[in-house]
Amino acid sequence: MLRVRALDAVGRILARDVTALVDVPPFDRAVVDGYAVRSRDTVSASPSSPVLLRLVKTRRVGPGEAVEVATGDPLPEGADAVVMYEHTSKAGPDIIEVFQPVPPFGNVSRRGEDVQRGQVIFRKGHIVTRLDVALLASSGNIEVEVYDISVALVCTGDEIFDIDKVSNLEELERLYLEGKVLNTTRLVLEHFLQQFGVKVHYVGAVPDDEQEIATIVDKCVEKHDMVIVTGGTALGKRDVTVRAVSKLKPKFMWTGLCIRPGRPSGIAILRGKPVLLLSGFPAAAVAGLLSVGKLVLEHLIDAKLELSLISGIVTRRVAKPPHLRAFVRAYACVDRNSGEIRIEPLAVTGSGLLTTLTRGNVLIEIPELEEGIDENMRVIAYLLGKVYYCQEQ
Amino acid sequence: MLRVRALDAVGRILARDVTALVDVPPFDRAVVDGYAVRSRDTVSASPSSPVLLRLVKTRRVGPGEAVEVATGDPLPEGADAVVMYEHTSKAGPDIIEVFQPVPPFGNVSRRGEDVQRGQVIFRKGHIVTRLDVALLASSGNIEVEVYDISVALVCTGDEIFDIDKVSNLEELERLYLEGKVLNTTRLVLEHFLQQFGVKVHYVGAVPDDEQEIATIVDKCVEKHDMVIVTGGTALGKRDVTVRAVSKLKPKFMWTGLCIRPGRPSGIAILRGKPVLLLSGFPAAAVAGLLSVGKLVLEHLIDAKLELSLISGIVTRRVAKPPHLRAFVRAYACVDRNSGEIRIEPLAVTGSGLLTTLTRGNVLIEIPELEEGIDENMRVIAYLLGKVYYCQEQ
Repeated sequence: MLRVRALDAVGRILARDVTALVDVPPFDRAVVDGYAVRSRDTVSASPSSPVLLRLVKTRRVGPGEAVEVATGDPLPEGADAVVMYEHTSKAGPDIIEVFQPVPPFGNVSRRGEDVQRGQVIFRKGHIVTRLDVALLASSGNIEVEVYDISVALVCTGDEIFDIDKVSNLEELERLYLEGKVLNTTRLVLEHFLQQFGVKVHYVGAVPDDEQEIATIVDKCVEKHDMVIVTGGTALGKRDVTVRAVSKLKPKFMWTGLCIRPGRPSGIAILRGKPVLLLSGFPAAAVAGLLSVGKLVLEHLIDAKLELSLISGIVTRRVAKPPHLRAFVRAYACVDRNSGEIRIEPLAVTGSGLLTTLTRGNVLIEIPELEEGIDENMRVIAYLLGKVYYCQEQ
Repeated sequence: MLRVRALDAVGRILARDVTALVDVPPFDRAVVDGYAVRSRDTVSASPSSPVLLRLVKTRRVGPGEAVEVATGDPLPEGADAVVMYEHTSKAGPDIIEVFQPVPPFGNVSRRGEDVQRGQVIFRKGHIVTRLDVALLASSGNIEVEVYDISVALVCTGDEIFDIDKVSNLEELERLYLEGKVLNTTRLVLEHFLQQFGVKVHYVGAVPDDEQEIATIVDKCVEKHDMVIVTGGTALGKRDVTVRAVSKLKPKFMWTGLCIRPGRPSGIAILRGKPVLLLSGFPAAAVAGLLSVGKLVLEHLIDAKLELSLISGIVTRRVAKPPHLRAFVRAYACVDRNSGEIRIEPLAVTGSGLLTTLTRGNVLIEIPELEEGIDENMRVIAYLLGKVYYCQEQ
């Protein structure tokens, strides 16, 4: 837990419910330009028989008086309403005519109208945006408490290399010719973890060496709240990550998850810290993160991490085997004719495909006991990106 | 225009269409663990009469041979398919039995399957996410060209103060008692401008002084691509911003916009640079930014800035006067029973209300010639925040 200034809380998880410490607005204020008046003085006003009021320059409005105010000004003492310029005219240097009655608190934004002192404005677990800072600060929350969750990310694999290591296209092509693979899983996981409001420390690309992986995971457990290891998490003979973590004698460990993609996911508890094992493939790693990683993070913050949702009509059938939870990447767009959101499941042959993550702006989760989704069915899915109008075919 | 490394492009606007410079994946690769084979060698395989293949350790698969591969490995030369471990068994140290035929390119992700060289992967005007970096870099775009649009933000008003100036609740309360107002418009505009991918330079809170505002705007026009001035933009006598900007002899200037909120919006062209005048109230400033500011930015980048959309059913009627474009803040959530998105217009008395911007996650734009929106009507709205399940009533 960390106490930070409201602006520094942007992108972080609130560690407590936040209540307003003052009323917003803190005083009654004018919402138009005009004259602050006592509404009862205007009751008989009409275009043919205007009410005459004396214009004063004090901070107090007495019977038969008016004070000029601009939008946003605090209401002067004694006044309970504001008459717009449009409903008045000047009848002399210090006299105005009012042509319409104004009800009590007409054209006034009342103290506490936006938020009342003591009211909960954000719940624990909420991830702060810059927009929220305006409300936090206005309501007296100059500082707030946020979680300081730090996640270490270790990507394993003899074949992977990082984008930072490449300075031009020729270098990239040379690495590709050697059969090397760009570590995209790191970028994809960083994207999602940041959206969850946690700080990610990318440790680096580590070769498929049991001892080396074990040493690094062991160090990371010391320094971070959670460790994520990607790659080598299946049970094949080249999957050294599982063996490396087992070697550290976790208190608890299981591997293999009934999700698709993401079967080679797992979790271990090492000295009280969660170690999440995720597939080396981007889409599979995301599915594992959303299934298990999210639960672990929720446990660490003792609050729900809500993903943004969208609802729409699926354009084609997707089947799946039973007893398996499927995460289907799909593309949502707004149909100009029907106004409805169309959700088009993307064809995938492997969990390594990147375009299904970048083009796919939604993720449909199909629970274990369902057989799939039917064409024209309404589904609620996770919203991962922006939604635009559909391109006409 | 600026050439930056793909990772540094996050949050910025692409200045050109981006095409893939290499195939993704760059080679045919295995999508399962197993044995790379020539598919025609497996045609006659069955559980009762398995095909025997010789296991070799070379990078080439000849007739009757197989090479062990892990998920993600490049397919060895000569092979065109991968048999999963599950469909094989070891019949000797160098011999495997295959129990099922595998079709050509079975369990293989083909070169260029994700993206083909030359294919457009992102359009000019797209705002880069960290997820996109994975595809940019994989496809050979180690560097990309982004716009380097810098917007100066000047907030005017004797009454406003900045959050940075306040260190505790007591100070805030003292300022409130003096009738001062926290400059929330700055935070709200920064939020939206960042989402548009532009860099915002907040110049500070400037008093209502015609000469001072003119001097600052003049300086900002020199250094930035666009200047936004908030507050004092109506035509009341305390609205000095309009007079300050007029004084600088703009080539073109108009003020007052038929939108609600946001009527006191305007634009001027000073030495070829756009100067946008926006209301000092947060919601009105946002409406002005989305109506005029967005068009100006689109002109500067010569591309569309698409806002994310949502579609749902409105829960109550909203009327508006004709010949006025209205921006209605609303709260969208997913109804657990119907699965539909419900959009509830928020009651507002003034454009100063902050909760309608923080609680309101969507903005409905009602065009000039429409009279409003009806209950149970489907609307397409701008999505400004996250969408969750509705709280049960």
